[in-house]
Amino acid sequence: MLAERGTRDQAAVRSILERVKADNRNSLTAPEAKAVCDAYGIPVPQEALAASADAAAKSAESMGFPVVMKIVSPDILHKTEAGGVIVGVSSADAARRAYDQIVASAKKYKSDAKIVGVQVQQQLGAAQEVIVGAISDQSFGKLIAFGLGGVLVEVLKDVTFRLAPASREDALSMLDGIQAAEILKGVRGGEPVSRDALASIIENVSTLVTDFPEISEVDLNPVFARPDGATAVDARLLVDWNPPARPKQHSRDEIVRAMNRIMRPDAVAVIGASSEEGKIGNSVMKNLINGGYKGNIYPVNPSADEILGYKAYKSVKDVPGEIDVAVFAIPAKFVAAALTECGEKKIPGAVLIPSGFAETGNVEGQKEIQAIGQQYNVRLMGPNIYGFYYTPKHLCATFCTAYDYQGKVALSSQSGGVGMAIIGFSRSAKMGVSAIVGLGNKADIDEDDLLTFFEQDESTQAVAMHMEDLKDGRAFAEVAKRVSKTKPVMVLKAGRTALGAKAASSHTGALAGDDKVYDDVLRQSGVIRARGLRELLDFARGVPVLPTPKGENVVIITGAGGSGVLLSDSVVDAGLTLMKFPADLDEAFKKFIPPFGASGNPVDITGGEPPKTYQNTIRLGLADDRIHALILGYWHTIVTPPMVFAKLTAEVVEEFRARGIDKPVVASLAGDVQVEEASEYLFDHGIPAYPYNCETPVAVLGAKYKWARGAGLI
Amino acid sequence: MLAERGTRDQAAVRSILERVKADNRNSLTAPEAKAVCDAYGIPVPQEALAASADAAAKSAESMGFPVVMKIVSPDILHKTEAGGVIVGVSSADAARRAYDQIVASAKKYKSDAKIVGVQVQQQLGAAQEVIVGAISDQSFGKLIAFGLGGVLVEVLKDVTFRLAPASREDALSMLDGIQAAEILKGVRGGEPVSRDALASIIENVSTLVTDFPEISEVDLNPVFARPDGATAVDARLLVDWNPPARPKQHSRDEIVRAMNRIMRPDAVAVIGASSEEGKIGNSVMKNLINGGYKGNIYPVNPSADEILGYKAYKSVKDVPGEIDVAVFAIPAKFVAAALTECGEKKIPGAVLIPSGFAETGNVEGQKEIQAIGQQYNVRLMGPNIYGFYYTPKHLCATFCTAYDYQGKVALSSQSGGVGMAIIGFSRSAKMGVSAIVGLGNKADIDEDDLLTFFEQDESTQAVAMHMEDLKDGRAFAEVAKRVSKTKPVMVLKAGRTALGAKAASSHTGALAGDDKVYDDVLRQSGVIRARGLRELLDFARGVPVLPTPKGENVVIITGAGGSGVLLSDSVVDAGLTLMKFPADLDEAFKKFIPPFGASGNPVDITGGEPPKTYQNTIRLGLADDRIHALILGYWHTIVTPPMVFAKLTAEVVEEFRARGIDKPVVASLAGDVQVEEASEYLFDHGIPAYPYNCETPVAVLGAKYKWARGAGLI
Repeated sequence: MLAERGTRDQAAVRSILERVKADNRNSLTAPEAKAVCDAYGIPVPQEALAASADAAAKSAESMGFPVVMKIVSPDILHKTEAGGVIVGVSSADAARRAYDQIVASAKKYKSDAKIVGVQVQQQLGAAQEVIVGAISDQSFGKLIAFGLGGVLVEVLKDVTFRLAPASREDALSMLDGIQAAEILKGVRGGEPVSRDALASIIENVSTLVTDFPEISEVDLNPVFARPDGATAVDARLLVDWNPPARPKQHSRDEIVRAMNRIMRPDAVAVIGASSEEGKIGNSVMKNLINGGYKGNIYPVNPSADEILGYKAYKSVKDVPGEIDVAVFAIPAKFVAAALTECGEKKIPGAVLIPSGFAETGNVEGQKEIQAIGQQYNVRLMGPNIYGFYYTPKHLCATFCTAYDYQGKVALSSQSGGVGMAIIGFSRSAKMGVSAIVGLGNKADIDEDDLLTFFEQDESTQAVAMHMEDLKDGRAFAEVAKRVSKTKPVMVLKAGRTALGAKAASSHTGALAGDDKVYDDVLRQSGVIRARGLRELLDFARGVPVLPTPKGENVVIITGAGGSGVLLSDSVVDAGLTLMKFPADLDEAFKKFIPPFGASGNPVDITGGEPPKTYQNTIRLGLADDRIHALILGYWHTIVTPPMVFAKLTAEVVEEFRARGIDKPVVASLAGDVQVEEASEYLFDHGIPAYPYNCETPVAVLGAKYKWARGAGLI
Repeated sequence: MLAERGTRDQAAVRSILERVKADNRNSLTAPEAKAVCDAYGIPVPQEALAASADAAAKSAESMGFPVVMKIVSPDILHKTEAGGVIVGVSSADAARRAYDQIVASAKKYKSDAKIVGVQVQQQLGAAQEVIVGAISDQSFGKLIAFGLGGVLVEVLKDVTFRLAPASREDALSMLDGIQAAEILKGVRGGEPVSRDALASIIENVSTLVTDFPEISEVDLNPVFARPDGATAVDARLLVDWNPPARPKQHSRDEIVRAMNRIMRPDAVAVIGASSEEGKIGNSVMKNLINGGYKGNIYPVNPSADEILGYKAYKSVKDVPGEIDVAVFAIPAKFVAAALTECGEKKIPGAVLIPSGFAETGNVEGQKEIQAIGQQYNVRLMGPNIYGFYYTPKHLCATFCTAYDYQGKVALSSQSGGVGMAIIGFSRSAKMGVSAIVGLGNKADIDEDDLLTFFEQDESTQAVAMHMEDLKDGRAFAEVAKRVSKTKPVMVLKAGRTALGAKAASSHTGALAGDDKVYDDVLRQSGVIRARGLRELLDFARGVPVLPTPKGENVVIITGAGGSGVLLSDSVVDAGLTLMKFPADLDEAFKKFIPPFGASGNPVDITGGEPPKTYQNTIRLGLADDRIHALILGYWHTIVTPPMVFAKLTAEVVEEFRARGIDKPVVASLAGDVQVEEASEYLFDHGIPAYPYNCETPVAVLGAKYKWARGAGLI
């Protein structure tokens, strides 16, 4: 009864679906559903369709008792509700009686129901009930679902999703992806269920809905999972003859070509450039100039000859040279006309700062500019955005204040408010960035375009994105899966909760996806998810600073036992594990710490120790190649003041880096206000360090680990 | 079959326990356990003890089939394992056969087992299986437990605990306190089980273990819960004839009298005072003097006549006047002798800064000073601490730097490192405190003593405590339950995770309690729990600033829709709910915001609005008495710069306060670095505000709400 991998009789399914279509139905009967399962190697119980009480009794006798009997009617979907199911039928006589009773109940439930007959089905013995299903999501397309059956799971909503098609690895990860995963491994001495059999069913359902996009929903519920196999006891399939089309896809090359010109332009036009203080077109001009942009700047304004020392043009069409990107700083109502001119000028990108489109109810206006963009192949950023920054070009194409501190991380936000918080935090924390981009209404350019650009942008080593929805979740997941293999992709998905999602939908008019789907698919795509804005910013700042760990052995070295305890709690929260010391390593650490210092991990060097003790233990942690990452807990004392600790730590870490040994090191500093300066010093030297905080350093390390695991680097 | 509340036949239980004791057993037989249940109104199925196969058949016939049959033997605890249980016995003949089979299996399992007979028990029909139990915890004493039965719960560990005796309210809260609580309310159209019946069983078990401390464990598993009642199908009771004694309890008066002298002394002796820079005895003297303490300071040092301008004494016994507290700054080995002198001088408190006691393995040394303390009635703070601060007296009895910024919150820490983080954070955030106290090894004074002091300390309005263990969890819970009715009590319990607990135990030699027990009991005691150090500090800073909310209607007013979404997510995480607007209120808000602003809650005033819009909407939020709390989301624009927003908000809030309308208001500020200054300004004006952060403002508001609910104020 093992599901056969790869069984795939497409012709059989096609002919069944054609019949369903001819009948103008949108659901399959039980026998049809069974035939589809058969065609795709999904094991189902023995069964037969009986058209009379005697036929039912005969079939039941041939497959052996007990049997389950169920109404077959295209007009009755909820069989139990209709009194159309009787279980535990244990003799031929009982089968006859059951037949009559089921038909009578069904007629009573729906007098005009077309009754095909009664299905007689082998009743399987005790097994673990699970559910395998598939749904069609507006943003992600086909998704496959897995969960435990039964009432508890219904209450606890313990289900996990993956994008279809799901690989064998994906399918197996689903079995571990539910809270109650342990049950499948056998509890109270029970045998584990067959992981292989379940994974095959998941894979086969996933292939089925991928092969036939018109199958909108599959519900195998329950599936009986046993040590020797798994059987789908009931299958329900729905079809949608007009499945939603995927949004228009650009090829990777097209995206890269356009985005490189937009993000790294040699010539920028400012439409609505102005000399007047306080105008957006004035701020954009000033930011371009004061930000240090070295390319050509073309102010466009029908009523000016010169703006801030630059020759102004009436239209982009009057500009002599090529233009890579046009930044719009004009009211919404003028955008369409100016955009058409950009199209005619063959400008590949428009940065649409103006608001007044879909977010204010002007959906038609947004559709109009989308159409112009498509007609002329002008990619649109926005509308309703603050613009963007690209520091390697010293480019501040925004009305916000200039920001030009270069670094490895690129950030984006769907919301302008969040964008302002990114800018403020970056400046305050002296966080270098490669880019900050506002996406706003996402009339065209969205997260997958940006990711595709950042993937090949040598100045970007990590990406952090705030998003409220994904117009094309599937495209994002596909790109993220590829990009996250080489660069960490961190996401704050707002609208995580039902309330938040409601706020998101009132805010952008976009339907926020079900969060569990986002959570699972983002994980499947190797994305690191931040729980909140502050965490996204902390990850964006800390993760790119850390080298990639080479293994799971994390060690805490702390001067304060109390920090050791809190850091240990954080280690568990961050999904990390503390290394278990082999005897020799324990002895080696003990040599450096007072005799009453606790042995094992955390290494508690005890309070009041001189700099040398920190130095020796950190050095040992870096030198021993069985150790892969260090978490330091510092305790402010007169003997080892904060800056002494910071300098010695940076020195030791740099010494090892020079020798080619670069392990992630993070630090938590407990002490008086001097620990703030010490933390900054450490951060500047590649050691994410935080004062008065035992959680963030470990969370940042945990995020790096999650990425490295997802990318297959450890 | 409803459990009868208040049924309580103590004599019956006592006589059963005496028999068990006489037999030198530590467990009750099934019939004994049943009799105990009967005596305490815990419903059990009909049953009889059969000593022969015929007797079994007769009993079974009289109670009706089916029956369950079980071995009765004091030597067999795990009956199923011994083959000693047969279910579904459905005829007299079957009962005879079952009797013989059970006895044979039991003998095979344990040949020398004393076999009393076989219990015949009514077999109950389908019901929801739950578990009710009681355990004895080292720190908390008797605890009562409730959970769902079955394998899923075993895997998901969905159990909740309360201190026994549990009130009716506690018992009912347990039914809602499990993750799968919904199941008890009936799912898939099922009827809800009787909450009354379950609560009565919980209460009765709780009364039982409280009346008989020697009953160390009760395990009613399963209890069958039905719409019309609940029955304990199996009961297992263990006894411990030497139950651990509770630690010595001081009366509330005793604690208050001693703690008031220690924390608010008129005269302080410094044992080991020193003129020598770098010595702890020197730092303590300087801090006392420079901190501004106005009471008498008596340096004690056998080899000095004067220290830092103060006359020095060879011994505390030479000091002419009364001394309230002696601060020890001498090596561990000299502590005992000096402490004896303190006792002879009748000093009520000793602050033991020295390390070198239990934390370094010197358990005997710690016991010695504990004994001296008890002999002379000197309360001991520490040892192994940084000392303490009490700002209303300008008292810095510590070797750390002086801190004298007065405020309403008192903080304590078990760990010195965490204490240093408290001091640093307080100074950095300009957080006023009433006290900061180090508890270290807690040889004597612990959290409940401190809480008892803070309860009656008029300078303290809230308490925040870091702890790794509770030597007397029951005492703490009792005091916290009382104190939290009037002052918020916030706790960071380190060693939350298994790893953390292990680190805690290696660090202090104290066994960290099971975290689920801590979590439930702290909640039962009205304590607000912080998840990490940074959260404890944020709670300590923000919660005392907020007025108590008068109801659950929370409203978000935001200039950035994006913040509105993130703040909504935070609202759910913090256990708050957004008010559903009645039509008139929605209209009222809409009057102030642009037509495209979203209606409902969050109130999205949209970006780029002038100060007036913030002002009008905040004013409306404060004026309408259906609204109980405001969360503000600010978006940095040129039109309403950060300080303009901060000032107008503070002004409106203060205007309403002056009119007696004081609602909690928190703010999240998204913008460039100027939002930091604006946040500080708001905080100074009683509005906890945070830059680049949509989580902390709401978490702080949520903590205030949790407290207010626990205290019965909303």
